[in-house]
This record gives sequence, structure tokens and C-alpha cells, in this order.
Amino acid sequence: MLKVGLLGAGRIGQVHAANIARHPGSQLAAVADVNGAAAEALAAGHGAAVRSAEAILADESINAVLIATSTDTHSDLIEAAAAAGKAVLCEKPVDLSLARARACLAKVAESGVPVMIGFNRRFDPNFAALKAASDAGEIGRAELLSVTSFDPAPPPVSYVRVSGGLFRDMMIHDFDMANFIMGTLPVSVMAVGSALVDPDIGAAGDVDTAVVTLLYADGRIAVIRNSRRAAYGYDQRLELLGSEGLLQAENVLEHTVVKSTAAGVSGARPEHFFLERYRSAYVAEWGAFVEAVRAGTPQPVTLRDGIDALALAEAATESARTGKPVVVTG
Amino acid sequence: MLKVGLLGAGRIGQVHAANIARHPGSQLAAVADVNGAAAEALAAGHGAAVRSAEAILADESINAVLIATSTDTHSDLIEAAAAAGKAVLCEKPVDLSLARARACLAKVAESGVPVMIGFNRRFDPNFAALKAASDAGEIGRAELLSVTSFDPAPPPVSYVRVSGGLFRDMMIHDFDMANFIMGTLPVSVMAVGSALVDPDIGAAGDVDTAVVTLLYADGRIAVIRNSRRAAYGYDQRLELLGSEGLLQAENVLEHTVVKSTAAGVSGARPEHFFLERYRSAYVAEWGAFVEAVRAGTPQPVTLRDGIDALALAEAATESARTGKPVVVTG
Amino acid sequence: MLKVGLLGAGRIGQVHAANIARHPGSQLAAVADVNGAAAEALAAGHGAAVRSAEAILADESINAVLIATSTDTHSDLIEAAAAAGKAVLCEKPVDLSLARARACLAKVAESGVPVMIGFNRRFDPNFAALKAASDAGEIGRAELLSVTSFDPAPPPVSYVRVSGGLFRDMMIHDFDMANFIMGTLPVSVMAVGSALVDPDIGAAGDVDTAVVTLLYADGRIAVIRNSRRAAYGYDQRLELLGSEGLLQAENVLEHTVVKSTAAGVSGARPEHFFLERYRSAYVAEWGAFVEAVRAGTPQPVTLRDGIDALALAEAATESARTGKPVVVTG
Amino acid sequence: MLKVGLLGAGRIGQVHAANIARHPGSQLAAVADVNGAAAEALAAGHGAAVRSAEAILADESINAVLIATSTDTHSDLIEAAAAAGKAVLCEKPVDLSLARARACLAKVAESGVPVMIGFNRRFDPNFAALKAASDAGEIGRAELLSVTSFDPAPPPVSYVRVSGGLFRDMMIHDFDMANFIMGTLPVSVMAVGSALVDPDIGAAGDVDTAVVTLLYADGRIAVIRNSRRAAYGYDQRLELLGSEGLLQAENVLEHTVVKSTAAGVSGARPEHFFLERYRSAYVAEWGAFVEAVRAGTPQPVTLRDGIDALALAEAATESARTGKPVVVTG
Repeated sequence: MLKVGLLGAGRIGQVHAANIARHPGSQLAAVADVNGAAAEALAAGHGAAVRSAEAILADESINAVLIATSTDTHSDLIEAAAAAGKAVLCEKPVDLSLARARACLAKVAESGVPVMIGFNRRFDPNFAALKAASDAGEIGRAELLSVTSFDPAPPPVSYVRVSGGLFRDMMIHDFDMANFIMGTLPVSVMAVGSALVDPDIGAAGDVDTAVVTLLYADGRIAVIRNSRRAAYGYDQRLELLGSEGLLQAENVLEHTVVKSTAAGVSGARPEHFFLERYRSAYVAEWGAFVEAVRAGTPQPVTLRDGIDALALAEAATESARTGKPVVVTG
Repeated sequence: MLKVGLLGAGRIGQVHAANIARHPGSQLAAVADVNGAAAEALAAGHGAAVRSAEAILADESINAVLIATSTDTHSDLIEAAAAAGKAVLCEKPVDLSLARARACLAKVAESGVPVMIGFNRRFDPNFAALKAASDAGEIGRAELLSVTSFDPAPPPVSYVRVSGGLFRDMMIHDFDMANFIMGTLPVSVMAVGSALVDPDIGAAGDVDTAVVTLLYADGRIAVIRNSRRAAYGYDQRLELLGSEGLLQAENVLEHTVVKSTAAGVSGARPEHFFLERYRSAYVAEWGAFVEAVRAGTPQPVTLRDGIDALALAEAATESARTGKPVVVTG
Repeated sequence: MLKVGLLGAGRIGQVHAANIARHPGSQLAAVADVNGAAAEALAAGHGAAVRSAEAILADESINAVLIATSTDTHSDLIEAAAAAGKAVLCEKPVDLSLARARACLAKVAESGVPVMIGFNRRFDPNFAALKAASDAGEIGRAELLSVTSFDPAPPPVSYVRVSGGLFRDMMIHDFDMANFIMGTLPVSVMAVGSALVDPDIGAAGDVDTAVVTLLYADGRIAVIRNSRRAAYGYDQRLELLGSEGLLQAENVLEHTVVKSTAAGVSGARPEHFFLERYRSAYVAEWGAFVEAVRAGTPQPVTLRDGIDALALAEAATESARTGKPVVVTG
Repeated sequence: MLKVGLLGAGRIGQVHAANIARHPGSQLAAVADVNGAAAEALAAGHGAAVRSAEAILADESINAVLIATSTDTHSDLIEAAAAAGKAVLCEKPVDLSLARARACLAKVAESGVPVMIGFNRRFDPNFAALKAASDAGEIGRAELLSVTSFDPAPPPVSYVRVSGGLFRDMMIHDFDMANFIMGTLPVSVMAVGSALVDPDIGAAGDVDTAVVTLLYADGRIAVIRNSRRAAYGYDQRLELLGSEGLLQAENVLEHTVVKSTAAGVSGARPEHFFLERYRSAYVAEWGAFVEAVRAGTPQPVTLRDGIDALALAEAATESARTGKPVVVTG
């Protein structure tokens, strides 16, 4: 039984708390949050204690921590948790600074402690099925990947300002998906971005609509499309063209009812946002972490994976700024 | 080159005229209609002559006639054309009276003249593909057939009164489809019908909504659903459950555009009615007739097929009236 | 907090045990089963006690029982639980005998104890969405309902022999769905059935493929199709034609990945069987029961509903035997 | 009645010949081809004369020419036809050289003769429906366009060598589609291309897989994906994200039959290639040309449109060569 300390009791922390509590191999022992009331409420619902992050890390009975705090604390907490010998599952991104993330990796690597980064989409059963079919050679050699990722609505500009920008905050998931599916880093990144959804996002120096093209050493190509706004909900699709066919992971819909009237034929929208769409992915992610810790096998998503995605985000940010392709250094 | 006389210049006659004219192996020589103006207009558009039906049948240079007149004239015209040695393609149904249709078959059989009945749906590429897949054993043994056939809107009650009723006028196509797919006549017919769409149809002694169940000697089953009104257009589907799977022929849509908005995800309606949905089927039907006449091979849909469908229509009419199953005599 | 005794630790009992344990308003207190080992295993996994059914009913600290035992014990257990003042959720069917079920209702009605029958499909989010759209008038007046319900594979003949037959055992769900959607009982039932899947089922006096037509007093119609075998998985669909349109609840698929190759375009199969397809329905069903008990409101599915479905099953069994329509007495 | 001379009796010339012959407002008068046998065969099938191109242009009874010869002859023939006062429908591309095409436009502009370029995809009913929905504001402001265009199989390398390269030969259609949907030229073009399908294509200096990103002055973006090989057939889709929703034009399938077995659920492939997929588009294209000539209204696709697409092809070719974005000069 893995005794788990949860750092961060916000929206995503609450998702993890429920999954930790329900998993037969883990137990939510303690919750920490700078917002004491949030920590209290979450802990109470699961019979866990409220503790400080320091106290959790110092508690030898706690085997693992789940880091769901604000991004600027991730690297420090990963390092502290690793130093305390605790297995770590940390939300993405590792850090807004690639250099800082690399330093974190260097420190943690010495400790030998398992660290997993929370790229939950790898555990979506649909994306996982696409990956499995590709790896099984069902479409021959994968040549052209397309990732579609549109949010239902943009975040407040106040959030955008501290987010590190669309490429680090939002497209980071899609960069990881490209790394996951293609199995290697690209050699160059070309990004185009615009503020079409909200001019205030542009005024804050960020973009809300972007297309990024990744070129691989062997000539393969990936293209990622992001928009901060899809009026119809959360649009999350993959498409992989191979030498012998095409794989498409389509959206998950809210229900299967189709209505046909004089006005046309209509059906359900996609699941609204990540809490709904990736509900089962979060469950599977936690299960994979617990299993790897238990078995002593490598984590399915490593700190290295977190840094690879961040490297692409940094390159894309630079490319969008300069209007030129940027060479990737892994 | 088949020289063709067209009897009947109404809506369906016009469809046939265009197909006869476009087919490289046939030519529209003459048109007859009790409505002289209609015959004139149609003939003029295709460079054909306007003649009486009698004159067409007497003209030795004409090899074939297409009968698209009102149902009550079909049997007489088939017999006269056969007597004149002309190949015949006659619109469905053969007759409203099963006895009269059987008498017609007896006469025509002696003549040896090829007669095809216009069950156009057999030539729909989708239904034909389903039939071919079933015949190829792709779903093992076919066990349960479902035919869905909803018209966009009911005809005027004046038409209903002379139509012979829903089972002879509308479901006749679906009875033929069951005979076509299952490859044999059922042993009993159970029909339920109501006038839900238009009470005047009920007052006229007919129904506008019906479900008919067909039971075959070997225990297989077919079920046919009819409605005179589908607000969303012409609904024409088949579903065949076999021992190793299911085949479904879905509707043909007006276009492939899908729109996703806050209101939901919507797409095109089915093709509106039979002129649109079965456009290519009418072309293929005519081609099959010409080819069979040319090659001297049996017609792909025979007068016997027309009588078999009519036998089911008569049984269903009786079953709906009495509320009891009716035994089919082929 | 509802303290719950579970009677029956078989396959469906295990599903309910997990849902009872996870619901924040209920707690699995005790488990009873004639198979002691099964009860032990299930109780241990949820920290519950193993008790006899009698002991559970006698325990005043237990507020509710969930009856998931074999069908022949349902009526007795419902009566005993009601006499003991416990809220009851009982799996379908109420009984194989309509008379016995009616007697049970009479007894329970006096007690005033809430009894819910486990027609889980009413809680499927897709069927519920279809029902809601129909009730909201989105397709006008509902006129023709079609229920498709095919199991992936037939049960062993040993089970078939004691099952009460396809109409009571399998189609009972579909009869309830018709009652649920149409909102009233039909006036007559016409059934056709065959043993096409397994001749041993026929030898046992049952059918494995059936079509039942229901006629309502106002002329509306419903048709139910059942097969014990669908090679592609569990086929569970609804289709409702109304005066202004059509509603279809399509199958739930295993994933959203579509593969296009030279061999064609292929996608996932339907969820395999009821444990997968109706997973969320069982959760919602339990939640609805707990909420109704807590609030003192009527149960969403009553013992009367169980009897109504059984009345249709009995009528269909008789109709399939005699080949004639059977009048329904509610 | 438009009397038409057809220049070029190859594969696409044959498609046009049939459409010219069937249109009630046009007549195929003469056919010219350097391959005399091809011209003979085609002319014979439609009752047309075989003539030289010069003779056709000199014949005052001929009102229009359709140019379906090899690309290197297009500009000369357009100029000669315009000088002879004949309306022109010319296959795409106008020329492999942008400068030459511009010179052609300058000459033709003086003549005032109507010239249409054969971007047939604008007349596909699905793409036209998407364009109409966008123009009607159904998804608000169009912000991000995606064009997918995969051929079933690459052409021979001998063809590739004289084709002008993928961007001028194949993606020219997609550039025109971007211009058509977005209604203006982009300001910059970024292209990435690889030879993944056939190394001989790479050895010939061309690519067979490419992604091009177009940036518009107002920040809007378009992305085009091309591959010379899709094992499943011709993949032709559009996707347009707007401020209030998404429009998708999906592939046209060979039929509507879906098969469900233990192996999964499978359906038809897309129509195989352009002759099948765009059959109706070619018919509509010719109809639009005839109607514009008859009415004296502007042609729906102009020589200017041909040059605009060519400008993007030239920019993309340059961008793929240099690895840098290229500024577009309209």
C-alpha cells in the first residue's frame, strides 16, 4: 500500500486525490496547500491529514508525493521529494525554464528516485490504442502525424501572463504527444502563431492560435494545431498517416444520441474539457505510476520526457518570435 | 441499338426517358401519354416522336417498351407488348390485384418475351453491396433482416384512395427487398398498421405507419417498418444480422459537411426522396435491362418477382385488417 | 449514510458491491450468499461482514438490501425485506410468475417500504438522453419505437432451461424500455421467435431470435428485436420516430480509433457486454436509489414497473407459442 | 448552343468531352490531339470531327475551346484562343512559370475574352457547401483552415521530373482551395517537404510528402498537408475553425454499407481517385462555364485565380528549398 502525500489541492489536485483514494494499492495520507481551507476540504473528504509540504516530505511513512502545485514550485519540490527518497508524480510542465528543468533532472538522476511527469494524455485509451496500432505496424511506417488540440475557451489574461505562453502551457501536451507517437525528437521546429481569439492575449505578448511543424532527421513530419477557443467544446484528435494507411483518434462525445429533423441531423458535442475527456486517463495514469513504483520498473513517463517536451516548447516560442525555423537540441 | 417506346410521360417516365437517351445502347424513339402536352414536352427534349400506345406497339422498328403509366393499365399493356413481341420494363406494382397479375404472368410466359419489373432499389449500389456481402458469406448465415423505409411526407388522400393501400403501394418495394435479400418467400406475414400521420388516411381505410414481420420456413425472420412521414427526409436503410456479423446499409446523405458549434454537431440530411436517392439505381436498372435483352439472358427482376412482392402485400393487407397472421401462398 | 446488506455475491452482486462502497452516501455492511467462499471474497474486498440473509434482515442497523440472488428467490426476499422495514433494490425480473409477482406487490404495497427494480438501462446516459429529448418534444409526438438488443453469445442451455425463456429473461429489459419510453402499456403483443443460434435452445423449448410488435391503444407501435448472438459484441440501440423527426441512441464503442487501409476503413466494436456497456448505468442506478431513499421520494423504477414488464414477457411467450396476438392486461 | 473544340484527348480530356456532349447548352464540335488515334477514338464516340488545334482556332463557328493538353502548351493556347475570340476553359496549372503565366494574363486581359481555369474542386458539392456555410457566417469569423489532400499512389518518376514539382503539380489545387475559402492571398508561406514515399522522387529533386503553413495579413492561418500516397484511396478533406465553430468536409465514400464482425466494424473506403471523387464537380464546372459565357458574367474561376495559386506554389517551392519562410507577392 503506497501512502501518498498530495501537494496542491486545486482543481487537478482534487482529481488526483479521488484517484489515489480509490486505487486499491494507494492511500491518500496527507494534503498540503498554501490555501488552508482548500487543503482542509479535500483532506476531510478522503479522511486524510492536512500537513505542510515540509512535514509531508519529512514523514518517513509517506512513500510518494503527487505534485499538483503551481508550475514555479515544481522543480524545487521534485528535488526536495527526491532528496527525501519519495517517489514522485509531478504535473506538467516540469518548469517554465528549460535550464532549470535540466538542472532538476541532473539532481534527481543521482538520487535514483522514480519520477513521473503527468502527461495524462498518453493514458487516454483512444490515443493509447492509436499508438499501439502504429507500434504494431498496422499502417506500416508512420510518416506524417497531425495533432489537433483546441480548448473550449481561453483562460483569463491574468493566467496567460504567468503561463509561460501557449507553447509552454498548452501545446506542451501536444509536443509530448508528438514525442510519444514518433518516438524521437524532431530536428527543427517551425511555429506560426496569432492572437485571434482575444486581443488582450496578444497585448500580453502571447498567441492563442498556432500551427507548429516538426521535421524529423529521417524526413518524417508532424504538425500541431492549437486554438484557445472551440465553440463546440474540447477538440482532441490525432491523425497518423503511414505507408500502409491512416489512423485517426476521434473525439469522445458526450452521448451517442443522434437527432434527425427537418433542420438536419445532429449529435452530441465532444466532452467539454479535460476533466471530462481525460477522466479515465487520470485514473490509468495513477495506476501506471503505482504499478511502476511497486514493481520497481521505469516510470512510463520520465523527467526526461518532461524536458523533451519543454525543449520543443522553447524552440516553438523562439520560432514564433523570429519567424524562422529553430534547430532542436535535445 | 434498342429502339424504345415510352408509355407514360409523368414524373417517373421523365427519369426513364433521360436514362434511355443517355445509354449508348438504347434510343428513345417514341413517347405516349394520355396527357398529350406532357408527351409533347418530353418527346421534344429528346428528339423522339409522340405516338399513341397502340401505334408504338404496332411499330415493328421498336424493340422495347417501358411502361410507366398508371398501375391499373400495367397488366393490359404488358400483355399487349408481349403479344407484339417487345421486351418490357414495367414499373411496379404489376397490378393491384394478385389474381390479375397471375393471369398476366400466365399469358406472358407463353410468349417468351423478356419482361422486367422496375424494382429499382435492387440496383441501388449500397443495397447491392449489402446483398453481395451477404451472398459472399461475409456474415455467415443471414438470420434477421430489417428494412426501414420512411417517406418524407404522405401523398394526398386522393392518391391514397386509388393506391391499393400502403402495403401494395409503398411497402411493395420492401417486400421485394426482403425477397431479394432472403432469396425466398416467407411462410407467414403478420402486419400491424395505424393512421398516425394523417387521420384522413385512416378515414380512407388505409394506414400510414406499419410494421410487418415475415417468418420463413427455416425460422429466419424479417421485419419491415414503414412510415409515410419522416420530417428529415427519405429514410432507406437495411440491416441484416447473420451468424457471424451484421451488415447495415445506411442512408445516402446530401453532402459530407459536418458543423460543430455550441449548439452541437450537425450534418446533412438523407437525400430527400426517391428521385434523388435512387438516381443512380434507375440508371443501373435500365443498363441491366438493356444488357439482358442484348445478351438474351434472363431479366434480373422478373414478372414472377413482381407477383411475389404482390402476394406479400396482399397477405399484409389481410393481416392488418384481421389482426392475425396470414399464411403466404407463393 | 445508508448501511446496506447485499444478498447475492455473484457477477452482478460484485458490480453492485463496488458501487455501494464507492457511493459517499452508502456503505456495504454485510454480504450473504449460499456460496460461502464467494461471500467471503467479496466481503473481504470491501471490509464488510459475511452474514446470512436472515441475519441481515434481522439487523436493525441495516437500512437497505440489494437483492442479487437467483430469480426464484426474489419475491420471497422482497417480501421479507419489506416486512423488516428495509428499502429494497431488487434485480430484474421480479419473478418468473406474473401471478407470484402480483402477490408480492400486494404484500409490499401495504408495508409502504420503498422497492426499486433494477432496470439498469433506464440509467444509461444515452437512453436517458433519448428519453429526455422525446419528453421535451424535440421530435414531436413519438409514434414508432424500435428496440435492438442482441447479446454477444448465448448462455449455456443449462441456464436457458431455468431462465423462464428469452422473453422473461432477456427481452424483459426491452419490454421495460418500451414501457419507459412510450409511457404506457400496449394493448396487444405479437411475437415471433425461432431457435437459429443453437438448436439445443430450441430443443429446450426456447427461442434465441425473436421479433415482438407492440400495439398501443392510440395506434402507436413498438418493435423489439432480440438475438442471443451478435458476433461483433453487445448491440444495444434505440430508435424513436416522431411526427417531427427521429432519435437514435447508437452503440457505445470500445474506443474512437479509426483505421483506413487498402482493406477498408475500420473502427472499434461496441462495448462487449452489459458489465462494460452499462458500467455507468449501474453507478447511476444505485445513486438514484440512495437519493430516493434519502429524500423519501418515489423510487424511479417501481415494483409495478417490474410487473408491467413481466406482463409483456408473459404475453409474448404466449403469442410466440400460439402464433397469435395476445391482449395485454396491465 | 455553344460549339466547343476540345484540345487534348487524354484522360481528363475524355471526362470533359462527355460533359460537353451531355450538357444541353453545349456541343462537342471538334477534337485535336498530337496523338491522332486518341483524337479519333474520342471524336468518334461523340460524333465530333478530328481537327488540328490551328484549324479549330480558325473555325469561326466554334465559340469555345477547352484546353486539356500538356501544361507547357497552356499559355500559348490560351493566348491564341483569346486572339481568335474564343471563350476558354483551361486545365490547371496555367503554366509552370509564374512569369510566363503573368505575361499570358496581360495579353488576354486586353482581348476581353472570358477565360476560366479548371480548379474543379471549387465545384465539389461538399466543398461548396462548406464555403457557403462559412460565407453565411455559420461559424463566425474563419480563423484556421486545414486542407488535407493525399493521392492514392505516386505518379511515375518520369512524370514527376516534368511536373514542376509537388507544389506546382499537386498542391496547386490546395493553394487554390485556400485562396477560395480564405478569400485573399497570404503574406507568407512556410513549406516543409520530404521524399518518404519513393526515394527516386527525392533523387529527382522533388518531395512526396509536405506540410505548408500560410499566414495571412490579419493573423489567420492555413495549413495544407499533401502526400503522394494514401493506401486507402484519395483523401480529400477540409476543416475550417471559426470563432463560433468548426466546419468539416469529410471524404466521399464508395458506399454506405457497414459490416460488424468479430474482427471489428468496417466500412467503405473513400472514392478512389479524382475521376470518381470529382465526377460531379467536373459536370458542375462545365455547367458554370457555359452559363457564364451565355450570360456574359465573369467566369467563376479566373486566370488571376490561376496565377494566385501558382504564386503560392512558387513560394512554397522556394521555402522548401531554403528552409525559410517566403514572402508572397500577389
